[in-house]
Amino acid sequence: MRRLDRSSFPGSERIPTVESLDRITSDPVYARLSSPGFHMAAMDGFAVEASNTFGAGPDSPLSLTVGRNAWAVNTGRPIPGGTNSVIMIEHVNFLDDDSFEIEKAVVPWQNVRRVGEDFVRSEMILASHHRITPYDIGALLCGGATGVNVVRKPKILLIPTGSELISASSLENSVPKHGDTIEFNTHLLSGLISRTGGIAVRSEIVPDDYEQIKQALTAGIEADYDMVVVNAGSSAGTEDYTAAIISELGEILVHGVAMMPGKPTILGIVGGKPVMGSPGYPVSAVFSFEIFGLPVIAEMLGVPSSARQTMAAYSARKISSKLGREEFFRVKLGKVGERIVAAPLPRGAGSITTLTRADGILRIPSNAEGIEQGAMVQVELLNQPQQVEDTLVIIGSHDLTIDCLADELVKHGIYVSSSHVGSLGGLLALRDDTAHIATSHLLDEESGIYNWSYVKKFLPEVPVEIFHGVMREQGFMVKKGNPKGIKDFQDLVRDDVTFVNRQKGAGTRVLLDYYLKKSGIDASKIKGYDMEEYTHTSVAVAVLSGVAVVGMGVLAAARALGLDFIPVATEQYDFIVPRKNLGDWKVVKLLDILKSQIYRDRISSLGGYGVERSGERLVEPK
Amino acid sequence: MRRLDRSSFPGSERIPTVESLDRITSDPVYARLSSPGFHMAAMDGFAVEASNTFGAGPDSPLSLTVGRNAWAVNTGRPIPGGTNSVIMIEHVNFLDDDSFEIEKAVVPWQNVRRVGEDFVRSEMILASHHRITPYDIGALLCGGATGVNVVRKPKILLIPTGSELISASSLENSVPKHGDTIEFNTHLLSGLISRTGGIAVRSEIVPDDYEQIKQALTAGIEADYDMVVVNAGSSAGTEDYTAAIISELGEILVHGVAMMPGKPTILGIVGGKPVMGSPGYPVSAVFSFEIFGLPVIAEMLGVPSSARQTMAAYSARKISSKLGREEFFRVKLGKVGERIVAAPLPRGAGSITTLTRADGILRIPSNAEGIEQGAMVQVELLNQPQQVEDTLVIIGSHDLTIDCLADELVKHGIYVSSSHVGSLGGLLALRDDTAHIATSHLLDEESGIYNWSYVKKFLPEVPVEIFHGVMREQGFMVKKGNPKGIKDFQDLVRDDVTFVNRQKGAGTRVLLDYYLKKSGIDASKIKGYDMEEYTHTSVAVAVLSGVAVVGMGVLAAARALGLDFIPVATEQYDFIVPRKNLGDWKVVKLLDILKSQIYRDRISSLGGYGVERSGERLVEPK
Repeated sequence: MRRLDRSSFPGSERIPTVESLDRITSDPVYARLSSPGFHMAAMDGFAVEASNTFGAGPDSPLSLTVGRNAWAVNTGRPIPGGTNSVIMIEHVNFLDDDSFEIEKAVVPWQNVRRVGEDFVRSEMILASHHRITPYDIGALLCGGATGVNVVRKPKILLIPTGSELISASSLENSVPKHGDTIEFNTHLLSGLISRTGGIAVRSEIVPDDYEQIKQALTAGIEADYDMVVVNAGSSAGTEDYTAAIISELGEILVHGVAMMPGKPTILGIVGGKPVMGSPGYPVSAVFSFEIFGLPVIAEMLGVPSSARQTMAAYSARKISSKLGREEFFRVKLGKVGERIVAAPLPRGAGSITTLTRADGILRIPSNAEGIEQGAMVQVELLNQPQQVEDTLVIIGSHDLTIDCLADELVKHGIYVSSSHVGSLGGLLALRDDTAHIATSHLLDEESGIYNWSYVKKFLPEVPVEIFHGVMREQGFMVKKGNPKGIKDFQDLVRDDVTFVNRQKGAGTRVLLDYYLKKSGIDASKIKGYDMEEYTHTSVAVAVLSGVAVVGMGVLAAARALGLDFIPVATEQYDFIVPRKNLGDWKVVKLLDILKSQIYRDRISSLGGYGVERSGERLVEPK
Repeated sequence: MRRLDRSSFPGSERIPTVESLDRITSDPVYARLSSPGFHMAAMDGFAVEASNTFGAGPDSPLSLTVGRNAWAVNTGRPIPGGTNSVIMIEHVNFLDDDSFEIEKAVVPWQNVRRVGEDFVRSEMILASHHRITPYDIGALLCGGATGVNVVRKPKILLIPTGSELISASSLENSVPKHGDTIEFNTHLLSGLISRTGGIAVRSEIVPDDYEQIKQALTAGIEADYDMVVVNAGSSAGTEDYTAAIISELGEILVHGVAMMPGKPTILGIVGGKPVMGSPGYPVSAVFSFEIFGLPVIAEMLGVPSSARQTMAAYSARKISSKLGREEFFRVKLGKVGERIVAAPLPRGAGSITTLTRADGILRIPSNAEGIEQGAMVQVELLNQPQQVEDTLVIIGSHDLTIDCLADELVKHGIYVSSSHVGSLGGLLALRDDTAHIATSHLLDEESGIYNWSYVKKFLPEVPVEIFHGVMREQGFMVKKGNPKGIKDFQDLVRDDVTFVNRQKGAGTRVLLDYYLKKSGIDASKIKGYDMEEYTHTSVAVAVLSGVAVVGMGVLAAARALGLDFIPVATEQYDFIVPRKNLGDWKVVKLLDILKSQIYRDRISSLGGYGVERSGERLVEPK
């Protein structure tokens, strides 16, 4: 924090204690009052001078008179002067309204909380640099500290820049124009700042213009902000002005860091205040800010940067990483058998859902070239550890019904981690014991029976049961109005038709190949047969955006994106469960839900699904 | 949750996404827009149709013309129609302003983020029952979801009852009258509710009056609260009305639970709404509400109750517990050597500081009779685990300077856990390896030298260094004006004088005994010689509140409580550090601070301390 002007760090302010939850004390707080403030009855009963009870015993009961040598007192009330102990009401035998006997003496200060028993006025209740908890609020008020000095919240100005950006609020009743991008990075950073204890203020969106960005930054430095963050424009492109502006106005300390995502990070100082240029890709913006921005805010508050809890896990896959930079992978976590398994999500720094879907962050240090499959790694948790225990790992073929299933399961406290790697990939995950359940729709070309022959071939040593999921319509997805007039498989080899395929091992691809063979079509004649997508929706997107003319997938995907659909087959989509997982309560609940009316109604409404036999255990064919 | 009217649970409300941090989704959220919404350049460079670059190589450079078959594009912008890849600007050799050469072809979709690469409109972005994170806000806005349906925050009415209670706000410029108690339980519970995601509303304080409490409860049930909590009056005393009122208005499900603290908890239902009677002692109120109240709020929100992280630790002491009830101990945690050590704080349910000082909660189940010293236990953490690593454990003699030291150390990220068990107790803690440092002022009656002979006797196998702490004045503490005219040790045996002593093993007691012997006084003649207190301040309180006429302690304690002070001796208070702990950075920092001017100035201002040699390593006497 070289050359930062610490005297400009946020000072302190006095606030009412009742509003101080989660604020940071700037000074120690001393008790103004002792607790208790008087000798207090700790029980309901009679206050007495203990020596007046000496000699009482079962054989020598001793009588006391209310108002003369005993006074009724309730818990929490002062004992009268001249008394020093309380006889519990339960130990009293009344003789009449005004007198009673006891069979046991009390010792001085028995059943009495003495003045200052908890703390004494002038004692320190809280040290400085302490985050105030609900308990602390109780203790402060108890000690008569109705106000408390806390560190003023650091105020951070976030300047979103980019001529392509539009504000989210402008979108409430419209869709973006072609090329417009919704500005959300600064809203995301605001949430991180707020959770750390700062206040984020977002400026208007500034276009990619040197002078305008400079003006916004200057205004922030001159106002009462403690730090300014310029989001995007931190790289070295023709419209990346942040570095030049910071250089002109102040000093750059760092430009570019050996981490990924987050490399194009700028740290500088302008007018004694920290300034940060943060990258435009959302995942880069997050990691850059979490590593470099939040610690500055913590420093201003005078508290340690909060560290995430970690958990040991086995890597479900080999993960490669480049030497010389620290790499941050977002991972899904699940407990399969006794092992916690970490599966990396896609790397793309533009993919915000890799953060929202992640259960944890896996850092691969700059001196490592990656991680072997099955290696033990430490993962920083984004959720409660219990959530990992409560996560059902489903790997295999993609279907839109999995999202509905996940949404029903979460109502029962079960989280679903689903990876779309195709039917075959699901079977291999069961083999490697990295999933509880695989989803599959692999058609045996010989027998016309789904899944069983593949299970036999790929999982010879894993005893499984197969539960029916859904029947679903597969077909061609084409643009609205079917402009190229696609009717059947013969159309796929036309010169003016580009196809988009699914990846090898996907059930849909197996189905396609089955029909091509049946129709005597040479796959190599199909333009785009090698263009692979991993999900039904991405095939639909390829068609919608004109990358391809036609692709194969389920009705629900076509319908969701407003594509036309030409049905070609009805197929069977199943859940494959290793027998050893059948007792897992999460699996049991999933199978229950498959049979439930609420789930079936929900799936039926998607269109193109048959749910009559959902959840049925299938009998292995002879 | 039998007989609770779930239909009266808080419904949902629609709020702007930008204000949704930490709220709980009531419905799944689907993308209104795909991300990206168009084929987007992933690099700065030139958009081209990939096939136009085929054949380019180091030996066969290929030239392209800007505006004809190549178009400049920046990261994040749409690529023009008819193009499907981007040549990075770094791979371009300009021939003139309008044309350039490349030495490498691009493949279709290289350096392009395709429409829907992250997610596609209609895909589920968040499931229901999900706590919205900063990342989620980014993803929601990215998907065009500018509003989100969330569970309405459960609204909890807290009714503080008790005729002895005064509001904290009434105290801002005054002190409580004798017998008044500051109401803080409901402020504390408010903080717990707020952290769980509910809204707490506190009613006015209601006196102990059946009709008035009934009226407050009825009003709460009839208003739009989701739950009502009556604080205090849940036991069975003459002014404990909660149970009777709930019975009259509705139904009691539970009265009294097998836990400690927290036993007098009432759970009931009135008008279909959950009602809780919670105990008056603050620690009881906390545990009762954390165990029974917060889970109801979590249930209303549709999220699992949050569980605290746990940590394995060794019990520093034997802890006894009663069979048949679950007992909750507040513990201090510290890492001494390689072991995490848990030391229980006092049990008193009236002592709010046992919660604020605690690092964790140790539950002893109802079927256990306690825990042996050294046994391994699981502790629920109240702080970050890192804080345990950064905690310096100081056990031994009490001195007010320890609080100042703690407040200086926290500025360096070091937390102090101090237990006041007397000088000898500190030495025994070093022997048991449950403390980093012991504090001691044990005078050798023969040699007149402090500490060394005791270290030799009690720590024969622990090599230590002794660092000087402070010189301090010990003396008699008496009420303002010294009404009994105490002058010297002879006065202690007077008939009209009651003394308050320190516990066995305390340095102050050793000092007293030394002077009594020197003066030829028989200790058994002193009234109150057996009345033991554990700290200087509690001795001072005993004097202030009239429990005793005189006690012995340091000037700072007398001054803090406005007592008169008759000096009798100057003594030496030291820090004893096992050699193996000398390399610990926390110990190093403590020794640094002892020598610092800022610390010495602070201590001097307390009065009665000599700091000239603070931090000096003492040489073992021959």
